[in-house]
Amino acid sequence: MAPTLSLALDLAGIFVFGLSGGLLAVHRRMDVFGVIVLALAAALGGGALRDVLLGDLPPEALRSAAPLLAGLGAAAVSFFFHRYLDRLGSAVRLFDAMGLGLFCVAGAVKGVSFGVGPLQATLLGVMTGVGGGALRDLLANQVPLVLEREIYALAALVGAAGAVALLPAAATATGLRIVAMRRGWHAPRAPGT
Amino acid sequence: MAPTLSLALDLAGIFVFGLSGGLLAVHRRMDVFGVIVLALAAALGGGALRDVLLGDLPPEALRSAAPLLAGLGAAAVSFFFHRYLDRLGSAVRLFDAMGLGLFCVAGAVKGVSFGVGPLQATLLGVMTGVGGGALRDLLANQVPLVLEREIYALAALVGAAGAVALLPAAATATGLRIVAMRRGWHAPRAPGT
Amino acid sequence: MAPTLSLALDLAGIFVFGLSGGLLAVHRRMDVFGVIVLALAAALGGGALRDVLLGDLPPEALRSAAPLLAGLGAAAVSFFFHRYLDRLGSAVRLFDAMGLGLFCVAGAVKGVSFGVGPLQATLLGVMTGVGGGALRDLLANQVPLVLEREIYALAALVGAAGAVALLPAAATATGLRIVAMRRGWHAPRAPGT
Repeated sequence: MAPTLSLALDLAGIFVFGLSGGLLAVHRRMDVFGVIVLALAAALGGGALRDVLLGDLPPEALRSAAPLLAGLGAAAVSFFFHRYLDRLGSAVRLFDAMGLGLFCVAGAVKGVSFGVGPLQATLLGVMTGVGGGALRDLLANQVPLVLEREIYALAALVGAAGAVALLPAAATATGLRIVAMRRGWHAPRAPGT
Repeated sequence: MAPTLSLALDLAGIFVFGLSGGLLAVHRRMDVFGVIVLALAAALGGGALRDVLLGDLPPEALRSAAPLLAGLGAAAVSFFFHRYLDRLGSAVRLFDAMGLGLFCVAGAVKGVSFGVGPLQATLLGVMTGVGGGALRDLLANQVPLVLEREIYALAALVGAAGAVALLPAAATATGLRIVAMRRGWHAPRAPGT
Repeated sequence: MAPTLSLALDLAGIFVFGLSGGLLAVHRRMDVFGVIVLALAAALGGGALRDVLLGDLPPEALRSAAPLLAGLGAAAVSFFFHRYLDRLGSAVRLFDAMGLGLFCVAGAVKGVSFGVGPLQATLLGVMTGVGGGALRDLLANQVPLVLEREIYALAALVGAAGAVALLPAAATATGLRIVAMRRGWHAPRAPGT
Protein backbone atom coordinates (compact mmCIF):
# COMPACT_ATOMS: atom_id res chain seq x y z
CA MET A 1 0.00 0.00 0.00
CA ALA A 2 2.84 2.44 0.79
CA PRO A 3 4.30 2.38 -2.76
CA THR A 4 0.81 2.89 -4.22
CA LEU A 5 0.23 5.88 -1.95
CA SER A 6 3.68 7.28 -2.76
CA LEU A 7 3.05 6.87 -6.50
CA ALA A 8 -0.36 8.53 -6.20
CA LEU A 9 1.16 11.49 -4.33
CA ASP A 10 3.93 11.76 -6.92
CA LEU A 11 1.52 11.75 -9.85
CA ALA A 12 -0.75 14.28 -8.11
CA GLY A 13 2.26 16.56 -7.55
CA ILE A 14 3.37 16.14 -11.17
CA PHE A 15 -0.12 16.99 -12.42
CA VAL A 16 -0.60 20.18 -10.38
CA PHE A 17 2.94 21.41 -11.09
CA GLY A 18 2.24 20.71 -14.77
CA LEU A 19 -0.88 22.89 -14.54
CA SER A 20 1.20 25.74 -13.07
CA GLY A 21 3.65 25.53 -16.01
CA GLY A 22 0.98 25.14 -18.68
CA LEU A 23 -1.03 28.08 -17.34
CA LEU A 24 2.03 30.34 -17.15
CA ALA A 25 2.73 29.55 -20.83
CA VAL A 26 -0.90 30.29 -21.77
CA HIS A 27 -0.76 33.60 -19.88
CA ARG A 28 2.43 34.46 -21.77
CA ARG A 29 0.61 33.74 -25.07
CA MET A 30 3.01 30.92 -25.98
CA ASP A 31 1.97 28.36 -28.59
CA VAL A 32 1.10 24.73 -27.87
CA PHE A 33 4.75 23.63 -27.75
CA GLY A 34 5.62 26.33 -25.24
CA VAL A 35 2.73 25.06 -23.12
CA ILE A 36 4.08 21.49 -23.29
CA VAL A 37 7.67 22.54 -22.53
CA LEU A 38 6.77 24.68 -19.50
CA ALA A 39 4.29 22.08 -18.20
CA LEU A 40 6.85 19.26 -18.42
CA ALA A 41 9.64 21.42 -16.98
CA ALA A 42 7.53 22.32 -13.93
CA ALA A 43 6.09 18.81 -13.57
CA LEU A 44 9.25 16.75 -13.94
CA GLY A 45 12.11 19.15 -13.12
CA GLY A 46 12.12 18.82 -9.33
CA GLY A 47 11.92 15.03 -9.29
CA ALA A 48 14.60 14.74 -11.98
CA LEU A 49 16.91 17.02 -9.96
CA ARG A 50 16.32 14.88 -6.85
CA ASP A 51 17.04 11.62 -8.70
CA VAL A 52 20.15 13.04 -10.40
CA LEU A 53 21.56 14.19 -7.04
CA LEU A 54 20.81 10.81 -5.45
CA GLY A 55 22.34 8.99 -8.44
CA ASP A 56 19.05 7.12 -8.96
CA LEU A 57 19.32 7.15 -12.78
CA PRO A 58 17.58 7.21 -15.17
CA PRO A 59 15.19 9.35 -13.07
CA GLU A 60 11.70 8.05 -12.31
CA ALA A 61 10.32 10.35 -15.03
CA LEU A 62 12.17 8.28 -17.66
CA ARG A 63 11.65 4.84 -16.12
CA SER A 64 7.90 4.59 -16.67
CA ALA A 65 5.47 6.40 -18.91
CA ALA A 66 3.09 7.47 -16.12
CA PRO A 67 4.89 10.66 -14.98
CA LEU A 68 5.31 11.83 -18.55
CA LEU A 69 1.65 11.13 -19.34
CA ALA A 70 0.57 13.00 -16.19
CA GLY A 71 2.65 16.00 -17.29
CA LEU A 72 1.28 15.88 -20.85
CA GLY A 73 -2.25 15.58 -19.44
CA ALA A 74 -1.67 18.72 -17.37
CA ALA A 75 -0.41 20.51 -20.50
CA ALA A 76 -3.58 19.49 -22.37
CA VAL A 77 -5.86 20.58 -19.51
CA SER A 78 -4.11 23.97 -19.26
CA PHE A 79 -4.30 24.43 -23.02
CA PHE A 80 -8.02 23.68 -23.39
CA PHE A 81 -9.47 24.66 -20.00
CA HIS A 82 -7.37 27.62 -18.86
CA ARG A 83 -10.49 29.83 -18.68
CA TYR A 84 -12.04 27.60 -16.03
CA LEU A 85 -8.79 27.22 -14.06
CA ASP A 86 -8.21 30.97 -14.02
CA ARG A 87 -11.54 31.45 -12.27
CA LEU A 88 -9.82 29.93 -9.21
CA GLY A 89 -7.89 33.20 -8.78
CA SER A 90 -4.10 33.22 -9.08
CA ALA A 91 -4.12 29.68 -10.42
CA VAL A 92 -0.41 29.40 -11.25
CA ARG A 93 0.51 30.06 -7.62
CA LEU A 94 -2.26 27.88 -6.27
CA PHE A 95 -1.19 24.80 -8.23
CA ASP A 96 2.44 25.61 -7.56
CA ALA A 97 1.75 25.61 -3.81
CA MET A 98 -0.04 22.25 -4.02
CA GLY A 99 2.81 20.68 -5.97
CA LEU A 100 5.29 22.16 -3.51
CA GLY A 101 3.66 20.47 -0.55
CA LEU A 102 3.53 17.08 -2.25
CA PHE A 103 7.05 17.21 -3.66
CA CYS A 104 9.03 18.53 -0.70
CA VAL A 105 7.76 15.65 1.42
CA ALA A 106 8.45 13.12 -1.34
CA GLY A 107 11.98 14.48 -1.83
CA ALA A 108 12.86 14.46 1.87
CA VAL A 109 11.50 10.94 2.36
CA LYS A 110 13.44 9.60 -0.63
CA GLY A 111 16.61 11.31 0.60
CA VAL A 112 16.32 9.64 4.01
CA SER A 113 15.66 6.27 2.38
CA PHE A 114 18.89 6.74 0.35
CA GLY A 115 20.83 7.29 3.55
CA VAL A 116 21.58 11.02 3.48
CA GLY A 117 21.55 12.85 6.81
CA PRO A 118 18.53 14.78 8.18
CA LEU A 119 19.81 18.28 7.35
CA GLN A 120 20.75 17.28 3.80
CA ALA A 121 17.47 15.39 3.32
CA THR A 122 15.64 18.57 4.26
CA LEU A 123 17.64 20.50 1.65
CA LEU A 124 16.91 17.78 -0.91
CA GLY A 125 13.20 17.99 -0.11
CA VAL A 126 13.23 21.75 -0.56
CA MET A 127 15.11 21.39 -3.87
CA THR A 128 12.62 18.76 -5.08
CA GLY A 129 9.77 21.06 -4.13
CA VAL A 130 11.12 24.23 -5.67
CA GLY A 131 13.24 22.78 -8.53
CA GLY A 132 10.49 22.33 -11.10
CA GLY A 133 8.98 25.75 -10.43
CA ALA A 134 12.41 27.41 -10.58
CA LEU A 135 13.16 25.73 -13.95
CA ARG A 136 9.74 26.84 -15.24
CA ASP A 137 10.40 30.43 -14.18
CA LEU A 138 13.96 30.45 -15.55
CA LEU A 139 12.74 29.22 -18.95
CA ALA A 140 10.03 31.91 -18.93
CA ASN A 141 12.75 34.45 -18.06
CA GLN A 142 11.28 35.63 -14.75
CA VAL A 143 12.77 35.69 -11.26
CA PRO A 144 11.69 32.38 -9.66
CA LEU A 145 8.66 32.63 -7.35
CA VAL A 146 10.78 31.03 -4.62
CA LEU A 147 12.93 34.18 -4.46
CA GLU A 148 10.00 36.56 -4.31
CA ARG A 149 7.54 34.92 -1.95
CA GLU A 150 8.80 34.29 1.55
CA ILE A 151 5.86 32.08 2.45
CA TYR A 152 6.74 29.87 -0.49
CA ALA A 153 10.18 28.84 0.69
CA LEU A 154 8.98 28.66 4.29
CA ALA A 155 6.27 26.18 3.32
CA ALA A 156 8.80 24.00 1.51
CA LEU A 157 11.16 24.10 4.46
CA VAL A 158 8.47 23.22 6.99
CA GLY A 159 7.19 20.39 4.82
CA ALA A 160 10.60 18.86 4.20
CA ALA A 161 11.84 19.28 7.78
CA GLY A 162 8.56 17.93 9.11
CA ALA A 163 8.84 14.86 6.92
CA VAL A 164 12.41 14.24 8.10
CA ALA A 165 11.45 14.74 11.73
CA LEU A 166 8.37 12.53 11.57
CA LEU A 167 10.05 9.78 9.60
CA PRO A 168 12.07 8.29 12.49
CA ALA A 169 8.90 8.22 14.62
CA ALA A 170 6.97 6.51 11.85
CA ALA A 171 9.85 4.13 11.13
CA THR A 172 10.21 3.27 14.84
CA ALA A 173 6.51 2.58 15.06
CA THR A 174 6.52 0.40 11.95
CA GLY A 175 9.68 -1.42 13.02
CA LEU A 176 8.29 -2.06 16.51
CA ARG A 177 5.10 -3.44 15.07
CA ILE A 178 6.98 -5.83 12.79
CA VAL A 179 9.20 -7.04 15.67
CA ALA A 180 6.13 -7.42 17.87
CA MET A 181 4.31 -9.50 15.26
CA ARG A 182 7.33 -11.76 14.75
CA ARG A 183 7.97 -12.30 18.47
CA GLY A 184 4.36 -12.47 19.54
CA TRP A 185 4.61 -9.38 21.76
CA HIS A 186 1.39 -7.78 22.77
CA ALA A 187 0.24 -5.03 25.05
CA PRO A 188 -0.96 -6.11 28.47
CA ARG A 189 -4.46 -7.47 28.39
CA ALA A 190 -7.02 -6.95 31.04
CA PRO A 191 -6.54 -9.51 33.83
CA GLY A 192 -8.62 -12.61 33.46
CA THR A 193 -8.90 -12.60 29.65
CA MET B 1 30.82 1.58 -39.32
CA ALA B 2 27.82 2.44 -37.15
CA PRO B 3 29.91 3.91 -34.28
CA THR B 4 31.97 5.93 -36.78
CA LEU B 5 28.80 7.33 -38.35
CA SER B 6 27.30 8.04 -34.92
CA LEU B 7 30.48 9.83 -33.81
CA ALA B 8 30.60 11.87 -37.03
CA LEU B 9 26.95 12.93 -36.57
CA ASP B 10 27.66 13.83 -32.92
CA LEU B 11 30.69 15.95 -33.78
CA ALA B 12 28.80 17.65 -36.63
CA GLY B 13 25.95 18.47 -34.22
CA ILE B 14 28.41 19.76 -31.61
CA PHE B 15 30.13 21.96 -34.19
CA VAL B 16 26.99 23.61 -35.59
CA PHE B 17 25.48 24.12 -32.11
CA GLY B 18 28.82 25.65 -31.11
CA LEU B 19 28.55 28.07 -34.05
CA SER B 20 25.06 29.11 -32.89
CA GLY B 21 26.40 29.89 -29.39
CA GLY B 22 29.56 31.63 -30.57
CA LEU B 23 27.64 33.82 -33.04
CA LEU B 24 25.07 34.80 -30.41
CA ALA B 25 27.92 35.93 -28.14
CA VAL B 26 29.53 37.91 -30.98
CA HIS B 27 26.19 39.60 -31.76
CA ARG B 28 25.88 40.51 -28.07
CA ARG B 29 29.39 42.09 -28.23
CA MET B 30 30.75 39.69 -25.61
CA ASP B 31 34.50 39.21 -25.36
CA VAL B 32 36.44 36.10 -26.38
CA PHE B 33 35.60 34.24 -23.16
CA GLY B 34 31.91 34.90 -23.53
CA VAL B 35 32.19 33.45 -27.05
CA ILE B 36 33.87 30.32 -25.69
CA VAL B 37 31.37 29.89 -22.83
CA LEU B 38 28.27 30.26 -25.02
CA ALA B 39 29.76 28.07 -27.78
CA LEU B 40 30.60 25.26 -25.33
CA ALA B 41 27.26 25.58 -23.50
CA ALA B 42 25.31 25.23 -26.77
CA ALA B 43 27.62 22.54 -28.17
CA LEU B 44 27.90 20.27 -25.13
CA GLY B 45 24.84 21.09 -22.99
CA GLY B 46 22.29 18.83 -24.65
CA GLY B 47 24.51 15.77 -24.77
CA ALA B 48 25.63 16.30 -21.18
CA LEU B 49 21.98 16.53 -20.04
CA ARG B 50 21.18 13.29 -21.90
CA ASP B 51 24.15 11.43 -20.39
CA VAL B 52 23.40 12.71 -16.87
CA LEU B 53 19.77 11.54 -17.12
CA LEU B 54 20.84 8.13 -18.44
CA GLY B 55 23.49 7.84 -15.71
CA ASP B 56 26.19 7.40 -18.39
CA LEU B 57 28.83 9.35 -16.45
CA PRO B 58 31.19 11.08 -16.96
CA PRO B 59 29.32 12.30 -20.07
CA GLU B 60 30.82 11.71 -23.51
CA ALA B 61 31.98 15.34 -23.59
CA LEU B 62 34.40 14.59 -20.72
CA ARG B 63 35.48 11.10 -21.83
CA SER B 64 37.40 12.10 -24.95
CA ALA B 65 38.89 15.37 -26.14
CA ALA B 66 37.11 15.35 -29.54
CA PRO B 67 33.78 16.92 -28.47
CA LEU B 68 35.54 19.66 -26.53
CA LEU B 69 37.89 20.39 -29.46
CA ALA B 70 34.91 20.52 -31.85
CA GLY B 71 33.21 23.04 -29.54
CA LEU B 72 36.37 25.14 -29.19
CA GLY B 73 36.84 25.01 -32.98
CA ALA B 74 33.30 26.35 -33.43
CA ALA B 75 34.09 29.14 -30.93
CA ALA B 76 37.21 30.07 -32.92
CA VAL B 77 35.35 30.01 -36.25
CA SER B 78 32.56 32.22 -34.86
CA PHE B 79 35.09 34.61 -33.37
CA PHE B 80 37.17 35.10 -36.53
CA PHE B 81 34.70 34.48 -39.37
CA HIS B 82 31.36 35.78 -38.03
CA ARG B 83 31.11 38.25 -40.94
CA TYR B 84 31.04 35.42 -43.46
CA LEU B 85 28.63 33.29 -41.44
CA ASP B 86 26.22 36.18 -40.98
CA ARG B 87 25.91 36.48 -44.76
CA LEU B 88 23.93 33.23 -44.57
CA GLY B 89 21.02 35.20 -43.08
CA SER B 90 19.81 34.40 -39.54
CA ALA B 91 22.84 32.23 -38.91
CA VAL B 92 22.22 31.53 -35.21
CA ARG B 93 18.86 29.94 -36.00
CA LEU B 94 20.17 28.12 -39.06
CA PHE B 95 22.97 26.38 -37.16
CA ASP B 96 20.68 25.82 -34.22
CA ALA B 97 18.20 24.00 -36.48
CA MET B 98 20.95 21.81 -37.95
CA GLY B 99 22.21 20.85 -34.51
CA LEU B 100 18.67 20.18 -33.39
CA GLY B 101 18.08 17.63 -36.13
CA LEU B 102 21.33 15.79 -35.45
CA PHE B 103 20.97 15.78 -31.65
CA CYS B 104 17.34 14.81 -31.24
CA VAL B 105 17.93 11.65 -33.27
CA ALA B 106 21.15 10.88 -31.38
CA GLY B 107 19.40 11.39 -28.02
CA ALA B 108 16.39 9.22 -28.86
CA VAL B 109 18.57 6.42 -30.24
CA LYS B 110 20.80 6.43 -27.15
CA GLY B 111 17.72 6.40 -24.90
CA VAL B 112 16.33 3.32 -26.63
CA SER B 113 19.71 1.59 -26.42
CA PHE B 114 19.71 2.26 -22.64
CA GLY B 115 16.34 0.56 -22.34
CA VAL B 116 13.96 3.46 -21.70
CA GLY B 117 10.48 3.19 -23.24
CA PRO B 118 9.52 4.77 -26.59
CA LEU B 119 7.63 7.77 -25.15
CA GLN B 120 10.41 8.58 -22.71
CA ALA B 121 13.09 8.08 -25.40
CA THR B 122 11.24 10.63 -27.52
CA LEU B 123 11.28 13.08 -24.60
CA LEU B 124 14.98 12.40 -24.06
CA GLY B 125 15.66 13.05 -27.75
CA VAL B 126 13.80 16.36 -27.60
CA MET B 127 15.71 17.34 -24.44
CA THR B 128 19.04 16.43 -26.07
CA GLY B 129 18.08 18.51 -29.11
CA VAL B 130 16.87 21.58 -27.25
CA GLY B 131 19.00 21.37 -24.06
CA GLY B 132 22.16 23.03 -25.38
CA GLY B 133 20.25 25.84 -27.08
CA ALA B 134 18.13 26.44 -23.98
CA LEU B 135 21.25 26.66 -21.78
CA ARG B 136 22.84 29.07 -24.30
CA ASP B 137 19.74 31.28 -24.23
CA LEU B 138 19.40 31.15 -20.43
CA LEU B 139 23.03 32.24 -20.00
CA ALA B 140 22.47 35.09 -22.48
CA ASN B 141 19.36 36.04 -20.49
CA GLN B 142 16.81 35.64 -23.31
CA VAL B 143 13.68 33.46 -23.53
CA PRO B 144 14.83 30.19 -25.14
CA LEU B 145 14.14 29.90 -28.87
CA VAL B 146 12.29 26.65 -28.15
CA LEU B 147 9.57 28.63 -26.36
CA GLU B 148 9.18 31.20 -29.11
CA ARG B 149 9.33 29.23 -32.33
CA GLU B 150 6.67 26.58 -32.71
CA ILE B 151 8.33 24.98 -35.70
CA TYR B 152 11.46 24.52 -33.59
CA ALA B 153 9.92 22.22 -31.01
CA LEU B 154 7.86 20.49 -33.67
CA ALA B 155 11.00 19.64 -35.63
CA ALA B 156 12.64 18.19 -32.53
CA LEU B 157 9.56 16.14 -31.72
CA VAL B 158 9.24 14.75 -35.24
CA GLY B 159 12.93 13.90 -35.38
CA ALA B 160 13.00 12.16 -32.02
CA ALA B 161 9.70 10.30 -32.50
CA GLY B 162 10.75 9.29 -36.01
CA ALA B 163 14.00 7.89 -34.73
CA VAL B 164 12.19 5.90 -32.02
CA ALA B 165 9.64 4.59 -34.51
CA LEU B 166 12.18 3.63 -37.15
CA LEU B 167 14.61 2.06 -34.72
CA PRO B 168 12.71 -1.22 -34.14
CA ALA B 169 12.41 -1.66 -37.91
CA ALA B 170 16.11 -1.05 -38.40
CA ALA B 171 16.99 -3.25 -35.43
CA THR B 172 14.75 -6.07 -36.70
CA ALA B 173 16.35 -5.83 -40.10
CA THR B 174 19.86 -5.87 -38.68
CA GLY B 175 19.10 -8.69 -36.26
CA LEU B 176 17.46 -10.79 -38.97
CA ARG B 177 20.46 -10.34 -41.22
CA ILE B 178 22.84 -11.44 -38.48
CA VAL B 179 20.76 -14.54 -37.67
CA ALA B 180 20.46 -15.31 -41.36
CA MET B 181 24.20 -15.10 -41.86
CA ARG B 182 24.87 -17.35 -38.86
CA ARG B 183 22.34 -20.02 -39.83
CA GLY B 184 22.92 -19.85 -43.56
CA TRP B 185 19.36 -18.75 -44.31
CA HIS B 186 18.74 -17.29 -47.72
CA ALA B 187 15.78 -16.06 -49.69
CA PRO B 188 14.32 -18.54 -52.17
CA ARG B 189 16.31 -18.77 -55.36
CA ALA B 190 14.91 -19.17 -58.81
CA PRO B 191 14.31 -22.88 -59.54
CA GLY B 192 17.11 -24.66 -61.32
CA THR B 193 19.95 -22.47 -60.01
CA MET C 1 47.03 15.91 5.82
CA ALA C 2 46.10 16.23 2.14
CA PRO C 3 42.38 15.39 2.71
CA THR C 4 42.25 17.83 5.62
CA LEU C 5 43.78 20.57 3.44
CA SER C 6 41.43 19.72 0.56
CA LEU C 7 38.41 19.82 2.88
CA ALA C 8 39.54 23.15 4.37
CA LEU C 9 39.94 24.66 0.89
CA ASP C 10 36.51 23.33 -0.12
CA LEU C 11 34.80 24.76 2.94
CA ALA C 12 36.58 28.10 2.49
CA GLY C 13 35.40 28.20 -1.16
CA ILE C 14 31.85 27.29 -0.13
CA PHE C 15 31.82 30.01 2.52
CA VAL C 16 33.06 32.86 0.31
CA PHE C 17 30.79 31.83 -2.60
CA GLY C 18 27.94 31.73 -0.10
CA LEU C 19 28.78 35.30 0.94
CA SER C 20 28.63 36.41 -2.71
CA GLY C 21 25.15 34.89 -3.08
CA GLY C 22 23.82 36.14 0.23
CA LEU C 23 25.06 39.70 -0.42
CA LEU C 24 23.55 39.75 -3.91
CA ALA C 25 20.19 38.79 -2.38
CA VAL C 26 20.51 41.49 0.28
CA HIS C 27 21.35 44.10 -2.38
CA ARG C 28 18.25 42.99 -4.34
CA ARG C 29 16.14 43.50 -1.18
CA MET C 30 15.13 39.83 -1.05
CA ASP C 31 13.82 38.39 2.22
CA VAL C 32 15.63 35.92 4.46
CA PHE C 33 14.67 32.92 2.30
CA GLY C 34 15.95 34.57 -0.86
CA VAL C 35 19.22 35.16 0.99
CA ILE C 36 19.44 31.48 1.95
CA VAL C 37 18.52 30.24 -1.56
CA LEU C 38 21.07 32.45 -3.36
CA ALA C 39 23.77 31.74 -0.77
CA LEU C 40 23.31 27.96 -1.05
CA ALA C 41 23.04 28.09 -4.86
CA ALA C 42 26.32 29.98 -5.15
CA ALA C 43 28.04 27.96 -2.43
CA LEU C 44 27.04 24.45 -3.48
CA GLY C 45 26.14 24.74 -7.19
CA GLY C 46 29.60 24.40 -8.72
CA GLY C 47 30.63 21.41 -6.62
CA ALA C 48 27.29 19.69 -7.21
CA LEU C 49 27.68 20.17 -10.99
CA ARG C 50 31.20 18.71 -10.82
CA ASP C 51 30.07 15.68 -8.80
CA VAL C 52 27.05 15.04 -11.07
CA LEU C 53 29.26 15.12 -14.19
CA LEU C 54 31.79 12.76 -12.58
CA GLY C 55 29.00 10.44 -11.42
CA ASP C 56 30.20 10.84 -7.82
CA LEU C 57 26.68 10.74 -6.35
CA PRO C 58 25.16 11.86 -4.02
CA PRO C 59 27.42 14.94 -4.32
CA GLU C 60 29.72 15.90 -1.45
CA ALA C 61 27.25 18.61 -0.43
CA LEU C 62 24.70 15.90 0.47
CA ARG C 63 27.10 13.37 1.98
CA SER C 64 28.07 15.34 5.06
CA ALA C 65 26.52 18.26 6.89
CA ALA C 66 29.66 20.46 6.81
CA PRO C 67 29.22 22.00 3.32
CA LEU C 68 25.58 22.79 4.00
CA LEU C 69 26.40 24.33 7.39
CA ALA C 70 29.17 26.43 5.79
CA GLY C 71 26.67 27.70 3.19
CA LEU C 72 24.03 28.44 5.84
CA GLY C 73 26.69 30.21 7.93
CA ALA C 74 27.55 32.40 4.95
CA ALA C 75 23.84 33.20 4.49
CA ALA C 76 23.59 34.23 8.17
CA VAL C 77 26.73 36.37 7.98
CA SER C 78 25.49 38.15 4.83
CA PHE C 79 22.09 38.69 6.40
CA PHE C 80 23.32 40.22 9.65
CA PHE C 81 26.66 41.79 8.69
CA HIS C 82 26.17 42.99 5.10
CA ARG C 83 26.97 46.60 6.12
CA TYR C 84 30.44 45.60 7.24
CA LEU C 85 31.10 43.40 4.22
CA ASP C 86 30.02 46.11 1.80
CA ARG C 87 32.71 48.41 3.19
CA LEU C 88 35.18 46.12 1.40
CA GLY C 89 34.04 47.65 -1.92
CA SER C 90 32.36 45.50 -4.56
CA ALA C 91 32.03 42.64 -2.11
CA VAL C 92 29.98 40.29 -4.29
CA ARG C 93 32.73 40.24 -6.92
CA LEU C 94 35.50 40.02 -4.36
CA PHE C 95 34.10 36.91 -2.67
CA ASP C 96 33.15 35.48 -6.03
CA ALA C 97 36.75 35.79 -7.19
CA MET C 98 38.05 34.10 -4.04
CA GLY C 99 35.63 31.20 -4.43
CA LEU C 100 36.55 30.94 -8.09
CA GLY C 101 40.22 30.45 -7.36
CA LEU C 102 39.57 27.78 -4.73
CA PHE C 103 36.96 25.88 -6.73
CA CYS C 104 38.57 25.77 -10.18
CA VAL C 105 41.63 24.12 -8.68
CA ALA C 106 39.50 21.69 -6.63
CA GLY C 107 37.42 20.77 -9.70
CA ALA C 108 40.40 20.20 -11.97
CA VAL C 109 42.20 18.10 -9.38
CA LYS C 110 39.13 15.93 -8.74
CA GLY C 111 38.64 15.49 -12.50
CA VAL C 112 42.21 14.23 -12.94
CA SER C 113 41.81 11.88 -9.98
CA PHE C 114 38.68 10.44 -11.65
CA GLY C 115 40.69 9.73 -14.79
CA VAL C 116 39.43 12.34 -17.24
CA GLY C 117 42.00 13.79 -19.67
CA PRO C 118 43.86 17.08 -19.07
CA LEU C 119 41.79 19.22 -21.48
CA GLN C 120 38.51 17.91 -20.05
CA ALA C 121 39.76 18.26 -16.46
CA THR C 122 40.51 21.92 -17.21
CA LEU C 123 36.96 22.37 -18.52
CA LEU C 124 35.60 20.63 -15.42
CA GLY C 125 37.66 22.92 -13.19
CA VAL C 126 36.31 25.99 -14.97
CA MET C 127 32.74 24.67 -14.66
CA THR C 128 33.23 23.98 -10.95
CA GLY C 129 34.59 27.49 -10.50
CA VAL C 130 31.92 29.33 -12.45
CA GLY C 131 28.93 26.97 -11.96
CA GLY C 132 27.76 28.23 -8.57
CA GLY C 133 28.09 31.88 -9.56
CA ALA C 134 26.27 31.26 -12.85
CA LEU C 135 23.39 29.53 -11.03
CA ARG C 136 23.23 32.42 -8.52
CA ASP C 137 23.06 34.96 -11.36
CA LEU C 138 20.49 32.94 -13.37
CA LEU C 139 18.22 32.71 -10.32
CA ALA C 140 18.58 36.48 -9.77
CA ASN C 141 17.74 36.98 -13.46
CA GLN C 142 20.94 38.74 -14.49
CA VAL C 143 23.51 37.86 -17.16
CA PRO C 144 26.16 35.75 -15.37
CA LEU C 145 29.31 37.64 -14.33
CA VAL C 146 31.35 35.07 -16.26
CA LEU C 147 29.91 36.38 -19.53
CA GLU C 148 30.56 40.02 -18.71
CA ARG C 149 33.98 40.09 -17.11
CA GLU C 150 36.80 38.75 -19.25
CA ILE C 151 39.24 38.62 -16.37
CA TYR C 152 36.83 36.36 -14.54
CA ALA C 153 36.85 33.51 -17.02
CA LEU C 154 40.55 34.00 -17.67
CA ALA C 155 41.31 33.56 -13.97
CA ALA C 156 39.28 30.35 -13.86
CA LEU C 157 41.01 29.01 -16.95
CA VAL C 158 44.49 29.80 -15.65
CA GLY C 159 43.71 28.27 -12.27
CA ALA C 160 42.26 25.07 -13.68
CA ALA C 161 44.91 24.64 -16.39
CA GLY C 162 47.64 25.39 -13.88
CA ALA C 163 46.31 22.77 -11.51
CA VAL C 164 46.17 20.18 -14.29
CA ALA C 165 49.69 21.06 -15.47
CA LEU C 166 51.21 21.00 -12.00
CA LEU C 167 49.46 17.85 -10.92
CA PRO C 168 51.61 15.38 -12.90
CA ALA C 169 54.72 17.01 -11.44
CA ALA C 170 53.33 16.76 -7.93
CA ALA C 171 52.10 13.21 -8.53
CA THR C 172 55.46 12.16 -9.96
CA ALA C 173 57.21 13.61 -6.95
CA THR C 174 54.86 11.91 -4.50
CA GLY C 175 54.99 8.60 -6.36
CA LEU C 176 58.78 8.69 -6.55
CA ARG C 177 59.01 9.34 -2.84
CA ILE C 178 56.75 6.41 -2.04
CA VAL C 179 58.72 4.06 -4.30
CA ALA C 180 61.95 5.36 -2.83
CA MET C 181 60.73 4.74 0.70
CA ARG C 182 59.61 1.21 -0.14
CA ARG C 183 62.80 0.26 -1.96
CA GLY C 184 65.18 2.07 0.31
CA TRP C 185 66.45 4.41 -2.46
CA HIS C 186 68.24 7.49 -1.37
CA ALA C 187 70.10 10.33 -2.97
CA PRO C 188 73.87 9.96 -3.08
CA ARG C 189 75.46 10.81 0.17
CA ALA C 190 78.67 12.59 0.63
CA PRO C 191 81.54 10.12 0.41
CA GLY C 192 82.71 8.72 3.70
CA THR C 193 79.40 9.08 5.56
